[in-house]
This record gives sequence, C-alpha cells and structure tokens, in this order.
Amino acid sequence: MNRITPALAALSLALLSTAALAQTPTLETQADAALESDTFAWDFVEGITTEVGQRQAGTEAEARGRAWAVQWLKANGFSNVADEPFMMSTWVPGEPGKAEIVSPYPQSFAIAPLGDTASTGPDGITAEVVMFKSVTDLVAAAEGSLKGKIAFVSNAMTRTQDGSQYGFAGPTRWVAAGIAAKKGAVATVIKSVGTDSHRNPHTGGTDFPEGVTPTPAGALSNPDAANLERMFQRAGGKPITMKLVLTPRFVGQTESGNVVGEIVGRNPSLPPVLLACHLDSWWNGTGAIDDGAGCGIIAAAAHNVSKAGQPLRTIRVLFAGAEEVGLFGSVAYSKAHISEPIAVGLESDFGADRIWRFDSNFRETNPALHKKIALAVARFGVSSGSDVAGGGADLNIVRDQKGALVDLQQDGTRYFDLHHTPDDTLDKIDIVQLRQNVAVWTQVVGILANEGMSIQTGTPIPSAPAIAGQ
Amino acid sequence: MNRITPALAALSLALLSTAALAQTPTLETQADAALESDTFAWDFVEGITTEVGQRQAGTEAEARGRAWAVQWLKANGFSNVADEPFMMSTWVPGEPGKAEIVSPYPQSFAIAPLGDTASTGPDGITAEVVMFKSVTDLVAAAEGSLKGKIAFVSNAMTRTQDGSQYGFAGPTRWVAAGIAAKKGAVATVIKSVGTDSHRNPHTGGTDFPEGVTPTPAGALSNPDAANLERMFQRAGGKPITMKLVLTPRFVGQTESGNVVGEIVGRNPSLPPVLLACHLDSWWNGTGAIDDGAGCGIIAAAAHNVSKAGQPLRTIRVLFAGAEEVGLFGSVAYSKAHISEPIAVGLESDFGADRIWRFDSNFRETNPALHKKIALAVARFGVSSGSDVAGGGADLNIVRDQKGALVDLQQDGTRYFDLHHTPDDTLDKIDIVQLRQNVAVWTQVVGILANEGMSIQTGTPIPSAPAIAGQ
Repeated sequence: MNRITPALAALSLALLSTAALAQTPTLETQADAALESDTFAWDFVEGITTEVGQRQAGTEAEARGRAWAVQWLKANGFSNVADEPFMMSTWVPGEPGKAEIVSPYPQSFAIAPLGDTASTGPDGITAEVVMFKSVTDLVAAAEGSLKGKIAFVSNAMTRTQDGSQYGFAGPTRWVAAGIAAKKGAVATVIKSVGTDSHRNPHTGGTDFPEGVTPTPAGALSNPDAANLERMFQRAGGKPITMKLVLTPRFVGQTESGNVVGEIVGRNPSLPPVLLACHLDSWWNGTGAIDDGAGCGIIAAAAHNVSKAGQPLRTIRVLFAGAEEVGLFGSVAYSKAHISEPIAVGLESDFGADRIWRFDSNFRETNPALHKKIALAVARFGVSSGSDVAGGGADLNIVRDQKGALVDLQQDGTRYFDLHHTPDDTLDKIDIVQLRQNVAVWTQVVGILANEGMSIQTGTPIPSAPAIAGQ
Repeated sequence: MNRITPALAALSLALLSTAALAQTPTLETQADAALESDTFAWDFVEGITTEVGQRQAGTEAEARGRAWAVQWLKANGFSNVADEPFMMSTWVPGEPGKAEIVSPYPQSFAIAPLGDTASTGPDGITAEVVMFKSVTDLVAAAEGSLKGKIAFVSNAMTRTQDGSQYGFAGPTRWVAAGIAAKKGAVATVIKSVGTDSHRNPHTGGTDFPEGVTPTPAGALSNPDAANLERMFQRAGGKPITMKLVLTPRFVGQTESGNVVGEIVGRNPSLPPVLLACHLDSWWNGTGAIDDGAGCGIIAAAAHNVSKAGQPLRTIRVLFAGAEEVGLFGSVAYSKAHISEPIAVGLESDFGADRIWRFDSNFRETNPALHKKIALAVARFGVSSGSDVAGGGADLNIVRDQKGALVDLQQDGTRYFDLHHTPDDTLDKIDIVQLRQNVAVWTQVVGILANEGMSIQTGTPIPSAPAIAGQ
C-alpha cells in the first residue's frame, strides 16, 4: 500500500506517539536492559585490550591508551572529553627477568620484577637464598644477617570474596624487599601475592624505606615458589644458590594523564557525580580486569543513565592514569580540581565479577538516600553493607574534600588469580557478571545524578539554584 | 612388668606369629593400601620435578634426570638398573620467543617455538599475518599465496575425557607449519593445541614434509591467539603485521638414554612384563604430569607387586628418553631388545588423573584373562572397555613384536590444559587421583606378572620351563 488517508495518518501518528511514550526508558528499564544485553562495557574493554593491550604508566603504550579512550568517549556521546596530562617519574621493567637455581638443583623459575625496584645489571647477581615463611620472620632476622644474601619470603595468599586477604598477604610484596635490603640482602624474591597456580608471576609496587637503597626484587610464580620451598626441604641444609637477572630502570620524567568525559547534567552548577577507574595497567597483562572492565562499567553506567533522560547533575568519568605505580593520576587530579566540589565519588577497580554488597559513607548522615539505593539494587542480588565506604584508589579528590563515597563491592574470589599477571586478559571476563555490574551501576548512578539535595546530609545545597521540576 | 613366664612367652610367640600371618600382604591388600596412602609415586614425581625440573631430550638436563632416576631406582630396591644410552639429533629452543604485533595494534604475545622448527635469527622477521580458521582452510589456499607471509591457524581445542580432541586439534601443530611453508610462508604461528586460558603457550613437535625447508613456527597462548583473531575482526581489512623472534637450533648429535630397572621374577626365563613411561620433558615445564607422574606410577606398581611376594615374571620398568621430540628412546629400545620377547606392555603417559577404563588387545584371544583383570579393577571404578589397546608411545618394542598390550585409560579432561606448557608442575597433581592410578596399576601388573600362560592366548608358553607351584 502506497497511499495513506489523512485519518489513517492521524491514527498512525497517535499510535507512534503512544509507542514512543511506552518506550521511553526509565532508569529502572535501562538498568534491567543492561543486565540482559549491555554491550557498551564489553565494547570498551574488548577494544582497549585488543587495540592497545598493556598500558604501563608513563610509557608510549599508556599514551596510546589515553588517545584511544579519548576517541572512544567522543564516539560514544560523551562531552568535554579531555586528556589532562601530568608528569611522573617512570619505571620500566626491562627485559624479561630470569631466576635460576645454580645449585644444588639447577632449574629456571618464572619471575617478574616488582615496581620501583633496582636492576641486577644484565650479568645478574648470584647469591645464597635465605627463606622466611612470613614478613614477621623476616622482621625478626638480625640486622646484617642477610648481608650478601637473597631473601625469599614464602608467605601464601588464599582466596576471599571481599579481597581482605590482600591486607594479610600484601605486605610480602609491599615491604619485604625494603626490610631485607635494610638487613643487608642484595635482592629479594617473594612468592607471588596471588591465589592461582600458574607460571605467571604477580608483579606490583614495593616500597623501600627512607634511606634504604632499593635492591632488585621480584615475584616468583606460585608453582616456582613452592618448588623453591621443596628444595629447602630436600637440600638438608646445603646452601641454595640463585642467579637473578632483573633489568628494570627509571627512565626519568615522562608524561601520563587523566582522561575525563562528561554526561552534562540539567544543572551543571551542581557538584557532579564522579565515576572513577584507571586506564593504566602493568606491562605484563592487557589490563582487562585491572582495570579495563572498570572503565567500561562506569562509562556504560553514565551512558545508560543519560538514555533515561538528561540527569540533574553532571556525571563525570575519570579514567585515571598511573594508578598502579603510585596513584599519580589520582593525586594529580585532586591537585588540579580540589576547588571544584564533587557530589559523590564511586570507583570500579576490582575486576568484573558480580557486585554483592553496597556500602556508603552517608548511611548515618543521609539514611534515606542510603536506603533508597539499597532498595533499588536489591533486585540485582546486592545487599546493603554496614562498612563505611572508603572509595577507590583514584578518588583522592573526594577523600581530600571529605566528600560522599559509595562502594559497590565486587566478588573478588578469583580476582587475585589474575591480578598483575600476564593472565589479565579479556577471556577472563564473564559477560553475564559484567552486565550485572553495569545494571547495578546504572541504577545507583542514576539515583545519585538525579539527587538535588546534598548526598552527604540530605539537606538542600546552600549554593544550589532552584531547578525547574525538582 | 619386667619378667615373663615361659607359658606367657609361648603364648606371645603364637600371637605374634598369627599377627604376622594376618599381615602378609596380598596383591589386593597392596592395591587397597596404595589407594589410601601410597607415597612412592609422589616421591618420584616430587623428587624429579624439584631436584631436576625440565629435562629437554638430548640436553645435560635430561642426562641429570637419567642419573637421578638411576639413583632413585637403586635406592628403592630395583635390580639391574641401567642407563642405556643412544645418540640423537638434538633441537633446543633458544632464547624465549617474541611475537609482537607491529601494526595496527602494537602488542606483545606469548609464544613458544615448536619442536624441530627453524630460527628467525636474533633480529627476527617481520611480515603480514594471514589467518586461517583451520588446517582445512590452509590446505585450500593457493600454492604460492603465502609467499612472504606469516600463516596463522586459529583452530581451537575443547576438553574431552578420553583426549580424543587431540586427534582433531593436533594437526594444527603437527602439519600446519609444513603446509604453510610449502605455500611460501616465511613462518607459521598457531593457536595453542590446548584447552586452557593462560598466557602459557603449548609447544610440541611439528613435521615438515620431505623437500620442504623448515621455517620458524610457534604456538601462541590461547588468550593471545584470541586477541589476534579479534584484531582481524577490528582491523577492517587493514594488514596485520607481526615481528617474530624465535631462535631454536639443532646442536647436532648428543646422547640420550633409556633408564631401566627390574623387579626380578621367580622365573626370569619367562618374558617380562614391561611398564613404560618417559623421562624427558619439554624445556618449558617440569614434566610433572608429562610424564614424571607416569614414571612414579609404574615404579610404585612394580614395587607394590613385589611386596606381595616375588612375582612369577620379571617386571621391567622403562623410563624412556627423548619421547617428546620423536620417540627416539622407544625406537632405540626396540632396536636394542627386539629379540627379547616381552610378555605384555603397559604405559602411563596421560597425566595423573583417575583411571576410568581398561582396554587390552587380547580381549578376544584370551577372554578369561581380560575378564579377570576387569573384575579385579572394578572396585576402583574402572570399567572394561572394548577398544583394542594400542599401547603408549614408548612401547614400540611390543608393537614391533606384535605382543600383548594393556591400556589403563586416565581421565584426560584437564590434561590438555597443562600439556607441553610451563604449567606442567607438581601442584597440578592430585595425590588422591595419583593413588588411584597406583592402586589400579598394582592390581593389574600383579595379575600379569603372576600369569604363567601366554598373555595373548592363555595357552602354555612353548619354551617356558615348568614352574614349581604353578
């Protein structure tokens, strides 16, 4: 049929208009749709892991990642997209590390240097290994007792849903090398702070105390560390000698940057909702779960909220640079923007598995809003927690402003299988769980971005002008 | 009480003697005890993976492995322990390989050279990558169409209990490089023939047809191969260029060897029962599941059988050398011993997971013996299969003699997660399942080693002298 009568045309228009009304998405339908079929978060993390890959902070790879993210945000409807550069002291890992048992049982182990550690030089160093079962045992070793030795700390990590074992096992990586160096060790090797059984060591940052010269230090893969422990059992007191070749170095000041983008709110004078993740990764993986997924989740949430109608407040996404190596991006962002109030901050940086709990730092000061969020996310299987939200690593600005924070707690059971390893790749992301993240984030961000009162207190914001329709 | 009356002493002696009788182990009690508490197999595989580690064929590491195994067999009561040397053409993997996407999406992939492939030279080669979804697609490519290109075959493998997918996916590794070279490719990369999702490539042998000059060829880890496939989807026809640095080389003729040991039977003139495994491993793992576990299992079975009383026939263990790189040990053993009849051959070389099925090649010619074995292993959850046993790779001598074979089929569901990767380490062995292997092997080897008739026919062996008590 090619012709249409005026009456029919009018009817058609009426029907179309009804259909359009029926199809106007609400925050709830947007969140529900995300649970079923979100492709936005996946597109980000698939894209950046495929087209960029590893994005070690301060390097040209991170710069490519920032350029890629800027382009992606612009292509996906974000406004005020920018790359805000800052300078940083940049450490690079050098050639693939080597850890070889010289005697009594010659074998090669998989090792990765820890961030900010020193080089052995290309010829390496060879020394006797002294084993400690924990940082506590290492601390108890006499001053000078490790002179000329390689310290080995064999503390293991177990899986926890909330990731709390990181606090227990993490010090092995964070401080053992510094403690050993202070006692004279020429180098330190640790069992990976990780929960897997693969020949993929877990790197990460380590700290040397003021006045202690950094030494070479690396993480052995868990199977290799277990092998070294067995060597001690079998050697019957014979010395175990290791040759270590680790060639990381500092390359001086280079540029990193924070990528930002916005969904502009109806009242841009209100403090924005800040959603954070980090764009950099360690050199050895592709930054899929840490933290490409996080950037995809927050961007998808902002996008979904905007599709349910322009939000009252601006939603700003912050893809921070140089998080892994010392939160340089978080510090730089706070320094640059400290005078611009943030309404509330949220970060996604714990993989892509299911959100199971929600915490805020305004449960006591604004119980109505906390309860509203809790009720809204219940249908996604998210319970209300009683912890005081502390915010992610890239939310320094909110902490510096003593602002409102929401933590959407992800299931971290398998996060430390992959954390800071070559195995941080796209195939580890379960799209069903990723979508649950996007759904929960959409719901929560939508509520926060349409909240006209102070997030922290529920009272009117003194400086906020009256908004039509509120 | 310090003193004892003569009557009490006599009673004590009687009780002791009864207890001793009750404790005389039978084959059945030995097998049952192995299921509960065997430590013999574990001791072997823990020892060789810890004290020797990787044992690439023809290298000094394999020689250390042979020396270690000789010492271990002697220390554990085996007789006629020997290392039977043979010469072989030896390939070594060179420096760790590199596979870097140069454009359009610069990234580094994890790669391992395939056995017997050529070097790119230390400066590597850079060329456009052409993707094929299967060997069939590669075969269909026009002659000369790959001139100057790197072929990439992306065929994937799925898990199967019986390992049968190896036959489907294996050709990607076995023949793709040769086919691509014939069509002009300068190199070949493949998706690993493996079922895991870790950045640990699966190496293994490959064949170049007669007249085709070997090229460089390597296996990408599965996450990296998937990434390369996504690059093709995203590049929209733009060429994808890879730099490949693989530096394997042949080092000429070197020595390998077969380690043998025996539990001598009551009638050493009867053909022995031959239990095989292989001692060598690829360079990248520690040869725990492939095949340290197998050597541990067969040695434990021979040991357990001997504890139930000296067996009628000699049980010989063959820890073959140089299996991975072309069955050189198997060929050498057959050549050296072809004139010495073997009663029956069995091999353990499929990991350390549970045995679930038993096959023989005498089910029709000696049904009584087949049934006897089937009934004896039923209590361990092992069913009788109807396949004709073909024997393991190191049983060339038995196949050359057209002798009797028994296959104790292991659960291979997770075998190809680990096969030929750095992840072939001790922690992958489940001691509960390892013990089930030892129990089943003890039972089966005990029956076979005490069988006076021909294994294949159940009839008297013409040349066998009469044995007291048979």
